[in-house]
Amino acid sequence: MPSQSVAIIGASGYVGAELSRLVQQHSALSLLGCYVSEHSSDAGTLLSDLYPQYGHCLKISLQGLSDKEKLSIKRQADTVFLCTDHGVSVALAPEFLEAGLKVIDLSGGFRLDAVEDYPTFYGFEHKQARWLQQAAYGLAEWYPHEIATAQLVAVPGCYPTASLMALLPLKQSGLLNNNKVIINAVSGVTGAGRKASLVTHGAELSLQAYGLFGHRHTPEIAQQLQHDVLFTPHLAQFPRGILATVYADLNPGVSDKELDNAYQCYAEQPLVRCDKRARPAIKDVVQQPFVDIGWHRQGNQLIVLSAIDNLLKGAASQAIQCINLQLGLPIEEGLL
Amino acid sequence: MPSQSVAIIGASGYVGAELSRLVQQHSALSLLGCYVSEHSSDAGTLLSDLYPQYGHCLKISLQGLSDKEKLSIKRQADTVFLCTDHGVSVALAPEFLEAGLKVIDLSGGFRLDAVEDYPTFYGFEHKQARWLQQAAYGLAEWYPHEIATAQLVAVPGCYPTASLMALLPLKQSGLLNNNKVIINAVSGVTGAGRKASLVTHGAELSLQAYGLFGHRHTPEIAQQLQHDVLFTPHLAQFPRGILATVYADLNPGVSDKELDNAYQCYAEQPLVRCDKRARPAIKDVVQQPFVDIGWHRQGNQLIVLSAIDNLLKGAASQAIQCINLQLGLPIEEGLL
Amino acid sequence: MPSQSVAIIGASGYVGAELSRLVQQHSALSLLGCYVSEHSSDAGTLLSDLYPQYGHCLKISLQGLSDKEKLSIKRQADTVFLCTDHGVSVALAPEFLEAGLKVIDLSGGFRLDAVEDYPTFYGFEHKQARWLQQAAYGLAEWYPHEIATAQLVAVPGCYPTASLMALLPLKQSGLLNNNKVIINAVSGVTGAGRKASLVTHGAELSLQAYGLFGHRHTPEIAQQLQHDVLFTPHLAQFPRGILATVYADLNPGVSDKELDNAYQCYAEQPLVRCDKRARPAIKDVVQQPFVDIGWHRQGNQLIVLSAIDNLLKGAASQAIQCINLQLGLPIEEGLL
Amino acid sequence: MPSQSVAIIGASGYVGAELSRLVQQHSALSLLGCYVSEHSSDAGTLLSDLYPQYGHCLKISLQGLSDKEKLSIKRQADTVFLCTDHGVSVALAPEFLEAGLKVIDLSGGFRLDAVEDYPTFYGFEHKQARWLQQAAYGLAEWYPHEIATAQLVAVPGCYPTASLMALLPLKQSGLLNNNKVIINAVSGVTGAGRKASLVTHGAELSLQAYGLFGHRHTPEIAQQLQHDVLFTPHLAQFPRGILATVYADLNPGVSDKELDNAYQCYAEQPLVRCDKRARPAIKDVVQQPFVDIGWHRQGNQLIVLSAIDNLLKGAASQAIQCINLQLGLPIEEGLL
Repeated sequence: MPSQSVAIIGASGYVGAELSRLVQQHSALSLLGCYVSEHSSDAGTLLSDLYPQYGHCLKISLQGLSDKEKLSIKRQADTVFLCTDHGVSVALAPEFLEAGLKVIDLSGGFRLDAVEDYPTFYGFEHKQARWLQQAAYGLAEWYPHEIATAQLVAVPGCYPTASLMALLPLKQSGLLNNNKVIINAVSGVTGAGRKASLVTHGAELSLQAYGLFGHRHTPEIAQQLQHDVLFTPHLAQFPRGILATVYADLNPGVSDKELDNAYQCYAEQPLVRCDKRARPAIKDVVQQPFVDIGWHRQGNQLIVLSAIDNLLKGAASQAIQCINLQLGLPIEEGLL
Repeated sequence: MPSQSVAIIGASGYVGAELSRLVQQHSALSLLGCYVSEHSSDAGTLLSDLYPQYGHCLKISLQGLSDKEKLSIKRQADTVFLCTDHGVSVALAPEFLEAGLKVIDLSGGFRLDAVEDYPTFYGFEHKQARWLQQAAYGLAEWYPHEIATAQLVAVPGCYPTASLMALLPLKQSGLLNNNKVIINAVSGVTGAGRKASLVTHGAELSLQAYGLFGHRHTPEIAQQLQHDVLFTPHLAQFPRGILATVYADLNPGVSDKELDNAYQCYAEQPLVRCDKRARPAIKDVVQQPFVDIGWHRQGNQLIVLSAIDNLLKGAASQAIQCINLQLGLPIEEGLL
Repeated sequence: MPSQSVAIIGASGYVGAELSRLVQQHSALSLLGCYVSEHSSDAGTLLSDLYPQYGHCLKISLQGLSDKEKLSIKRQADTVFLCTDHGVSVALAPEFLEAGLKVIDLSGGFRLDAVEDYPTFYGFEHKQARWLQQAAYGLAEWYPHEIATAQLVAVPGCYPTASLMALLPLKQSGLLNNNKVIINAVSGVTGAGRKASLVTHGAELSLQAYGLFGHRHTPEIAQQLQHDVLFTPHLAQFPRGILATVYADLNPGVSDKELDNAYQCYAEQPLVRCDKRARPAIKDVVQQPFVDIGWHRQGNQLIVLSAIDNLLKGAASQAIQCINLQLGLPIEEGLL
Repeated sequence: MPSQSVAIIGASGYVGAELSRLVQQHSALSLLGCYVSEHSSDAGTLLSDLYPQYGHCLKISLQGLSDKEKLSIKRQADTVFLCTDHGVSVALAPEFLEAGLKVIDLSGGFRLDAVEDYPTFYGFEHKQARWLQQAAYGLAEWYPHEIATAQLVAVPGCYPTASLMALLPLKQSGLLNNNKVIINAVSGVTGAGRKASLVTHGAELSLQAYGLFGHRHTPEIAQQLQHDVLFTPHLAQFPRGILATVYADLNPGVSDKELDNAYQCYAEQPLVRCDKRARPAIKDVVQQPFVDIGWHRQGNQLIVLSAIDNLLKGAASQAIQCINLQLGLPIEEGLL
């Protein structure tokens, strides 16, 4: 089996911790180190002190990312996972890429097609147009070849993963008519990140919509789907998981068989569980690397339901799927 | 102040208990008795034993509804509230109506326009076409005059209340175009009733869609709105509350001012809290008689958010609004 | 009915907001103003913007507590409620007391008997020994006369309220033997206050003990009970409520009747619901001003269960009980 | 590696499903079949239809346990896991034992020392005194040799597991004085089993004590610990997990070092995570096979905190530990 040395930068967040755990239990990956920003108060802390649930496997000291550590990563690592803020990823990635490493970025820093969209949706000027262009979009079941050969992979956002896994089979099969697709999605609170905030305060949490008309995942979904979408996220009080309820219209004359056939694209995919009768529930995907999909139809109206764990298929386990593809391993290696 | 003697039938369920409490604390209403079906095992039990939270105000013995009790109700009560199953309401209501009492029914037994829809959506033949025709639809802010003078009031369903309160201002103002309106709604588990069931088991609950394309609240919303709707309910793990996220398209050329003006219909309504900037949350309406509404627009796309307590504005407190209207009292009497 | 003008300082926190609401709906109280610290970013904000659930009744602008505002309070208010941090209360209270106002303090600043205990349990030197000595302990059912005549009332802590309401009947009746009493208590997250913190992050919350052997409510309970106690609090993921499970040993020979008689002290108390068979639950006291108490015995071992809403009987509604006592009103005035 | 054919009877409950999953992913175990009672409505259903979260690994048809199936099990299985009701286990176990199979019983049917205790605590006469006497108590870290050689293993109850793992180190080291030990424990709702019930209804759940003085886990803990205990369970609204807060008194003169040394017995145990500074939380053990333990002391008063997943270390994963011991495998085989 191939073996890769990997570094995880931004390891102290929810996604970073899940990824660290997955790397630790992956037989083809060797964890060089877990890093946080140079002056973070978490530097020097054991990852297992932040995440006691992983006390048995993550007794790893978080290291501040000094120049010296960067040098050490460049010398010893094959792949760098970035679980950093969007802007930090855009700043860090080229450094490692130019040193010849592969980079799998879990931020939004390399997800959009055009640098022009960054000021609007991410609030900063994107100065890495060349790398942006070269980045493969890491939706693992859909772009395995691009991912396998890319030096830079942009792992999709959590909502786009749930949404695109539901919709791409229809789009690819030419079954969607031109009407706007409506995506109503609900996420657990880990989606808001691990930082002190009133928004995530346990007594303030309640089912509530946010980011109306302007969420940064809207352009990501639209450009990947090549379709007009209206995406509305909601925050709920549960810790993990996303449920997307997708409303779409079929072209006239689409038969049930054509519809079911469209989802046959997932028939051999080990991490996709789909069924036309299914009503996926958050509890069934939490702490699991699967996406659960069900579709329901009345006339030309279609409702597709899609559920994932936002930290796994929506981030960390999908990043593992990407490196599996790069290493020529089964897509689910280390995940089941 | 006028004084009314009221009987509550079906008082042992979640809605019945809330209504009993509201009647108890209403200075114009006198509670004749709380009834359950004749052979219910709850007969003889104190309502406060089922609902210890109301131990201070509901030390009322539930009575089996025998013929003798019915007679007593007919003799002494002015108004009967029915919190019974749909079919039971249809069977019971005429008996009290014909004895000259007023009936406020919280089931779906008299909500639809046509008896023909009952076998499809409620699973029984409706034999009371005449009363169905005479029933006023108890959406209190919208039909105060019909409610005030009706002998029979059909209190709206919980989802229709949340949906219609959000949409009727647009429809009435002629702002909606002809496209189908999509209503994505999430309800707490009390919406499933107080009965032993795996569906409501605390370890089985999780955000999940149900009733796709076929929920009985769809025709209720559509006929009241006079508009094509696609309504999708979801069950969540919290006890109470409904959040409806409504997607609608405006007619071309509707100005922001026209839109805001449409919601001015609620300006003087004491139990409607609405604001174009609002993002209503479940926690803000739980145990309260309000509906919270916010609207958001991009071009001609509109999202209206609407939150209620399913047991209060979605049932019991709306029933109190109805009797207030009948008694010529302020609509919020006894609710704030 | 008497009428009092009251000011609420520290109104932006969970307790302050509940208290503001209760004052607003109390017919004998007139709310002069709601205040926050002079340079708080909340100054100028509507209280209802922080608490949309009270949008209908708390459209009150929070005012920074400048010298000018203090003067205005001294001139116009009869009573000041302090919902401030412990040290702030100790600093502020004398100022208002010396101006002749009454002060009802909801912090821990005046709860302990001895100034010497403050550095250990509250982390500051207490310079107001004289006022500390004069403060009445505001456990409303137990010290009505002291409260009625005191210029300064120290409203008990939430855990001490739940614990003492369970234990004082036994102590007063001489039924407790000398063994240490063990109090195992669980609180909702509002108990940790309304501030951004990882501790209260919705994804970090989980049932967990804290403050082992050293929580500041231990000396408060012990000195009021005049008994050795071991108190262990736990944080849980629900928003509101406290359940205390109290383990105590009875003196030899105590009869069931003597035990039940001890709790007869509450027979006429409108805000105490107690029963020897009861197993109080958090859900039954949330958003209610009651304490629910049940006791269970085997031989001389006794378990007393006690549940309150930490923000109401554990703070705001008990403060209202105190001012009711001071005004000669029924203890439950404005609370039911 | 040794290979064993195992049958799981009572596979449709929460414990049975977890155990089926663990057996499926265990490389030394081969799953002969999953069984339910002969006339159960679940017979013929796929286990994954009841547990969609295990859709990828439990597409196993539940079989009714007819005489024919029993015969087939006797012929082909090496070990039978019983996840059945207590009385059913007592009836079934001897049949398989006498056919020479090993039985690992997850019910309470063989946990108590004396048949005389069964009518009181389990409500039935126990007719299998001989097997009861031969049963090894399956607390895996404590009785590895007995378990390894026993034909019948009684896997401990969930509360006893959490309690005994916390207390046995103290008892074995002779550090506990004679005072009664108090165990205050809180369990998630899966502990109440997977059956329709008002007790487990999502809107009825709330932190609440039950089984005061009489819970059947009391004698189980007391006899294993050989110590007087007062055990009080509470039901909470979360799905999984137990937190036990244990109050005990140390003998006079016990040093900190002696105390810490007592827990050194777990130093090499891969599924015990313990630390004198730890405050275990439910979230850290959910879906994990660990027990997390922390101890805290003041003088001779000791508080030990202990957390497990009630379905794993409290049932299914401990059963796997037992079969690992029987097969001479590492105790954690198949669990990490």
